Amino acid sequence: MREAHPILVGGAWIEDPHPTDTVKPINPSTGHEIGDEYPVSGSETLHRIAQHAAQVAEVLNATAPDRIALFLDTHAGFIDERRSDIASIAHTETGLPRSPRLVETEMNRTIDQLRQAAACVRSRDWMRPRVDTQNNLRSMFEPLGAGVLVIGPNNFPLAYNGAAGGDFAAAIAARNPVIAKSHPLHPGTSRMLAQCAHDAVVATDLPKGTVQFFYHCSPDDGLALIRNPNVSAVGFTGSRGAGLAMKKAADETGTPIYLELSSINPVFVLEHAVRDRGEAIADQIAESMLQASGQQCTSPGLIALRSSEYADQFIDQLSSRLKQASPQVMLSHDGRDGLDKAVQHNMNCGAECLIGGRKIDDDAARYEHTLLCTNASHFLEHHQELQEEMFGVAALIILCDDNDQFALIAEKINGNLTGTIHHSDCDAPVLKALTRPLRLRVGRLIHNAVPTGVHVSPATVHGGPFPATGHPGFTAVGLPTSIHRFCALRCYDRVSDDQLPPELRDRNPTDEMLRYIDGKWTRDDADE
Amino acid sequence: MREAHPILVGGAWIEDPHPTDTVKPINPSTGHEIGDEYPVSGSETLHRIAQHAAQVAEVLNATAPDRIALFLDTHAGFIDERRSDIASIAHTETGLPRSPRLVETEMNRTIDQLRQAAACVRSRDWMRPRVDTQNNLRSMFEPLGAGVLVIGPNNFPLAYNGAAGGDFAAAIAARNPVIAKSHPLHPGTSRMLAQCAHDAVVATDLPKGTVQFFYHCSPDDGLALIRNPNVSAVGFTGSRGAGLAMKKAADETGTPIYLELSSINPVFVLEHAVRDRGEAIADQIAESMLQASGQQCTSPGLIALRSSEYADQFIDQLSSRLKQASPQVMLSHDGRDGLDKAVQHNMNCGAECLIGGRKIDDDAARYEHTLLCTNASHFLEHHQELQEEMFGVAALIILCDDNDQFALIAEKINGNLTGTIHHSDCDAPVLKALTRPLRLRVGRLIHNAVPTGVHVSPATVHGGPFPATGHPGFTAVGLPTSIHRFCALRCYDRVSDDQLPPELRDRNPTDEMLRYIDGKWTRDDADE
Repeated sequence: MREAHPILVGGAWIEDPHPTDTVKPINPSTGHEIGDEYPVSGSETLHRIAQHAAQVAEVLNATAPDRIALFLDTHAGFIDERRSDIASIAHTETGLPRSPRLVETEMNRTIDQLRQAAACVRSRDWMRPRVDTQNNLRSMFEPLGAGVLVIGPNNFPLAYNGAAGGDFAAAIAARNPVIAKSHPLHPGTSRMLAQCAHDAVVATDLPKGTVQFFYHCSPDDGLALIRNPNVSAVGFTGSRGAGLAMKKAADETGTPIYLELSSINPVFVLEHAVRDRGEAIADQIAESMLQASGQQCTSPGLIALRSSEYADQFIDQLSSRLKQASPQVMLSHDGRDGLDKAVQHNMNCGAECLIGGRKIDDDAARYEHTLLCTNASHFLEHHQELQEEMFGVAALIILCDDNDQFALIAEKINGNLTGTIHHSDCDAPVLKALTRPLRLRVGRLIHNAVPTGVHVSPATVHGGPFPATGHPGFTAVGLPTSIHRFCALRCYDRVSDDQLPPELRDRNPTDEMLRYIDGKWTRDDADE
Repeated sequence: MREAHPILVGGAWIEDPHPTDTVKPINPSTGHEIGDEYPVSGSETLHRIAQHAAQVAEVLNATAPDRIALFLDTHAGFIDERRSDIASIAHTETGLPRSPRLVETEMNRTIDQLRQAAACVRSRDWMRPRVDTQNNLRSMFEPLGAGVLVIGPNNFPLAYNGAAGGDFAAAIAARNPVIAKSHPLHPGTSRMLAQCAHDAVVATDLPKGTVQFFYHCSPDDGLALIRNPNVSAVGFTGSRGAGLAMKKAADETGTPIYLELSSINPVFVLEHAVRDRGEAIADQIAESMLQASGQQCTSPGLIALRSSEYADQFIDQLSSRLKQASPQVMLSHDGRDGLDKAVQHNMNCGAECLIGGRKIDDDAARYEHTLLCTNASHFLEHHQELQEEMFGVAALIILCDDNDQFALIAEKINGNLTGTIHHSDCDAPVLKALTRPLRLRVGRLIHNAVPTGVHVSPATVHGGPFPATGHPGFTAVGLPTSIHRFCALRCYDRVSDDQLPPELRDRNPTDEMLRYIDGKWTRDDADE
């Protein structure tokens, strides 16, 4: 038996003194154990990690922005140097294609996110300082004061990783120490990314324990960690069930928690768009559905269109595209079984199976590409049951009898990350009627394009109304806005200049930072 | 028997068709009923109100900023015209002094807040538009899409009123329809303010039902209203018990709720400050405690100082100042009884009574000015029990044996709205040790001044960590930041210019609005 891998606590890799169990990851392409063992940490260890985080926070909060930025850039550089090894282990653990998905696409996004965060730290724009010289009142966003727990999902082993992803970058950018939890499906990948972070902490002389890391814990121990007063916020991306349990725990202790939960990403293909370019749209949607075997939070899972011969052609085209593509290995056998359960659930609720709908019978975790279909009246009657996320290459087509049903469907849609409308000029009246109900229910509204492929841009929103996330006013992607999730708004009332944080002193500490001084945004000093 | 007053539903004053009870307010100065009756609305009525709000939201969300601003200014103007009548009824209902408190101080703040909100609406600064022209991604803050429920407290009948106060102004500024709930202690005051709002809605031709208003409801019906999908956010200022029940309901449905709960506003008077100017500080604190009979969310309720002869003089001075002042009428007899309960609780937990500690035996709701005292060791041992808010002229003094105990006390303080430090130059080392733990636990840190008297300034923060509020990243006072509580962050992905909100189109719709376009804040158009 191999020894379980060490965890990163208080700045050192140590053997977990009291693991409650071990995780033995399985290669989803073969169904066999990979051969490594990772500890499941218990409450004592997690308590100690949280305590460290709170101690580190004091030093880290007082660290100069340039050093935080240097850490983020250095971390990005280490990941870049080790990209081949990281992609290899990520491929073994997740079944995601090594190239271009892991070694280029997701890796570049991860590195770019960290570098964008570094730039935001240097600009200090996220602090949004406000000064009222008459009353000597000054306020800005500051770090929270203890650890931020970041829990990454199964489907983006790099770009959402607790030790390297978007939540990590945002939390550190605001100078919070991070407690990173691996997803149990890719502990080896996470270990390598945590090692990069640790090496960067050492190289840039940040306080020991700025980044701590563990592999897994029981649900109860995880909820206790969320309630721990030394955890000041939580970022979680994952399943709705786990997320809502965490939200409940966090809500009880008033701990800010940012969730990215399931989303079915409705797509509306309006009448004239289907007629004008139905096949091209079907091709686009098929390509979008096939990305990462459909295991993306923005994967299209519901497609509404009006019945017609063109709609039939659209469905034929989409079906044939999906059938042409070979089912790829999914993230795990459990994930494949979950997909099957969701597909069967929707069929039991009256959706007809057009293609697919079954597991593929071999050792790899694979599932037939699936299209279900129902009509609008049936959907409207059973809209809650029929919004079960099918996390894989699977979508539910809704056929409308008339154009009015598009808006009626949108009114019944739960909160989602994205909503897409394909339209042509002649669809204008329907577009108008549909836009309002859909707009209110999605974080990102897309026209004539696909929802997958989230740009890491300051102008994006990767968020949306509950239950897609926990709060409609935040985004998980897009710097510097995503940083505001991990901040406290704090005010200094008649505090003398030498006792103020640099960003609130009369003198602007950079030439670039905009501050709201006495009624206007300015780069000037406050005493001018 | 008089008929119960009508409520404001869907743009018309109507008799509540199904009241579950009535409220008969009492004059706290006499203990007698004022003579008016107000309906307690039931679930059917509240459901109807919420439905109206969601319908109105669509029209209101599309209303031009100038008209929203005009409404806010007009509302402010109507309140200004009727200030004398409003102050009179507010005085009868709350016992707060008519002048200067109601007719000048609080009235001016209320009017000023509405006008500041109008200016923010015109500037559109709160929308914070972000544009990425390369990817045609555009995002900004938008109204939530249904009603915002605003529940005002007992202690600021004007400036926090559901139909005229800070939450109201912020919610409307973001173009959300408001469902205003009166506090049952001042329904007549609220009725007049709701009338001003209604008149302003009519005068500026905003959609009917932009402001709806009811007086009271049972706790269960209130929680059901919070869970109603047509209520998209809640603003509540009041007691911790009621607030936490509402938070639980809102958390279950993922409804953003902004709470301002109890706060004991710790004050630390450091060794040399006591020595150098102890009596002057005692005078300041006494004056602050006496404001509004101590019924303010920022009233100092805990005073820590180091034992010494100067500390004794400080306490003597504070005691004599409080004794010199006559106890004023409190907001209600229930409130006075609540204060008594909290004082007795703290005494039962070992605090010694220096002065006061008893109800005054007459018809008016009055209470003796109260000082309790304990030592730091005792407080540190019983810190949870001894942080019970005493909502009145009452504070707990904590005497420290040494300077190290200041920071230890601060570490045990719950989340508060404010924290104050009085210090002299020689206190520098203690100030340094105390600042970090106190800073993390309060929204506004004050030096050498008093916490009462919140400036309505863009640079203030009236917020703080749980349980003072529900989230440390927001403020209830200070425009435009307070508006962000009632917004959703929404993104438009490859949407053509003519389908975008004006603020996200290439052309900047104002000359003033800063937008973040392709990496910089600019007032330019996006296509330049």
